[in-house]
Amino acid sequence: MVVDAEPRMLKHQIVRKNLDALLDDLSPGDSFPSERDLAERYDVSRETLRQAMRELLVAGRIERRGRTTVVADPKVVLPLAIGSYTEAARNKGMTATRILVGWSVDGADDNLADLLHIETGDAVVQLERVFTTDNVRVGLETTRIAAHRIPGLMETFDYRDSLYAELSTRGIQFDRVVDSIETVLPDAREVSLLNVDPRTPMFLLNRVSYDIDGVPIEQRRSLYRGDRMTFTAVMHA
Amino acid sequence: MVVDAEPRMLKHQIVRKNLDALLDDLSPGDSFPSERDLAERYDVSRETLRQAMRELLVAGRIERRGRTTVVADPKVVLPLAIGSYTEAARNKGMTATRILVGWSVDGADDNLADLLHIETGDAVVQLERVFTTDNVRVGLETTRIAAHRIPGLMETFDYRDSLYAELSTRGIQFDRVVDSIETVLPDAREVSLLNVDPRTPMFLLNRVSYDIDGVPIEQRRSLYRGDRMTFTAVMHA
Repeated sequence: MVVDAEPRMLKHQIVRKNLDALLDDLSPGDSFPSERDLAERYDVSRETLRQAMRELLVAGRIERRGRTTVVADPKVVLPLAIGSYTEAARNKGMTATRILVGWSVDGADDNLADLLHIETGDAVVQLERVFTTDNVRVGLETTRIAAHRIPGLMETFDYRDSLYAELSTRGIQFDRVVDSIETVLPDAREVSLLNVDPRTPMFLLNRVSYDIDGVPIEQRRSLYRGDRMTFTAVMHA
Repeated sequence: MVVDAEPRMLKHQIVRKNLDALLDDLSPGDSFPSERDLAERYDVSRETLRQAMRELLVAGRIERRGRTTVVADPKVVLPLAIGSYTEAARNKGMTATRILVGWSVDGADDNLADLLHIETGDAVVQLERVFTTDNVRVGLETTRIAAHRIPGLMETFDYRDSLYAELSTRGIQFDRVVDSIETVLPDAREVSLLNVDPRTPMFLLNRVSYDIDGVPIEQRRSLYRGDRMTFTAVMHA
């Protein structure tokens, strides 16, 4: 069975190839020619050009700065890892920090209780932070931990620090993490918190971490901008 | 620094929560109430309801079947792995197969030559296949291998089979793979080949595999539907 007839190459895809070649000759921060100039150069309609530009925006190759368009920085490439992505970004020489969205304490629902091996209704501390690299909001990380494991954390922990390091200081040792990796579009709240175009595909990582006794430490939901982040994984036979 | 004022909960998000609860009580294949019924039930405009439904579609919770909407099957969950995803899906009891898009032979450009440790212009065989699970086109896999490594492959290999198994039969042993994982939107050709909504976030996995001598075996570009696939990764300290 062969797939019917190769779909025809659309005009905007040809434009896109030209734009990709143009981008290869430019550097991050360089200004990108105007829609009007490019439409004239390639002899296509403004609408055709706009579609190709939208693809480049969503792919993170160009970005808007006010009314001008510039070549975007390359994506942040981080290995899928058990530890802190903020520390990993810093180790790669980037400026990386965390912004507090909020702390809260709630009773666990059935699902969360099941994940954390606690009883439904048990107190769970939730910490929500925005993760930035080079001053761009690239991720929204929500961590939930059974309150009994981290007495006093809300009062003493500086949200700019690594939570993994803090837990380690408290004698909690990470042994194993299980990530599920999905792609989603951001909802309205996430669009606002990450200042991102609602059409941007995002990484959604749901994680449960376990300590050396096999007891769950945290449930974490992390949403990262797909136009700013690439993950890598190395696997051995 | 605290993020300014929690973004307000939008009306469509409240509807979305109601629809999520509704979905939890339904099973895959069940018909989903009409837009009109739901708009009346939650006392919101058709447009508000439509936005929430679009999110559910893109998230793969519901799907269109002609003019009706039904509850979608759960996503296919596969571990990030060195081997064949088709075989992995079959091992989980799914029907999985491959559809041929095309074979081609081209000279390597600088970039591909570099990845495969060959000379620019050396012949590279390219095999492009659609990967299906339970009769749904979920992925588009494009594999490029230096022609000298696989004499006669195009003439003898059945595209429905596992290429990894075939290479193994030929004495090529996979030792290590390096994946980069991105999220993208599909282009027009991919929309057509995978029969997918152009707003669907996709996984893009770019892989280079190496044999036990450290020599590159293949460069593979795989695009998977984000509304149908979830990857998992387990990491140890």
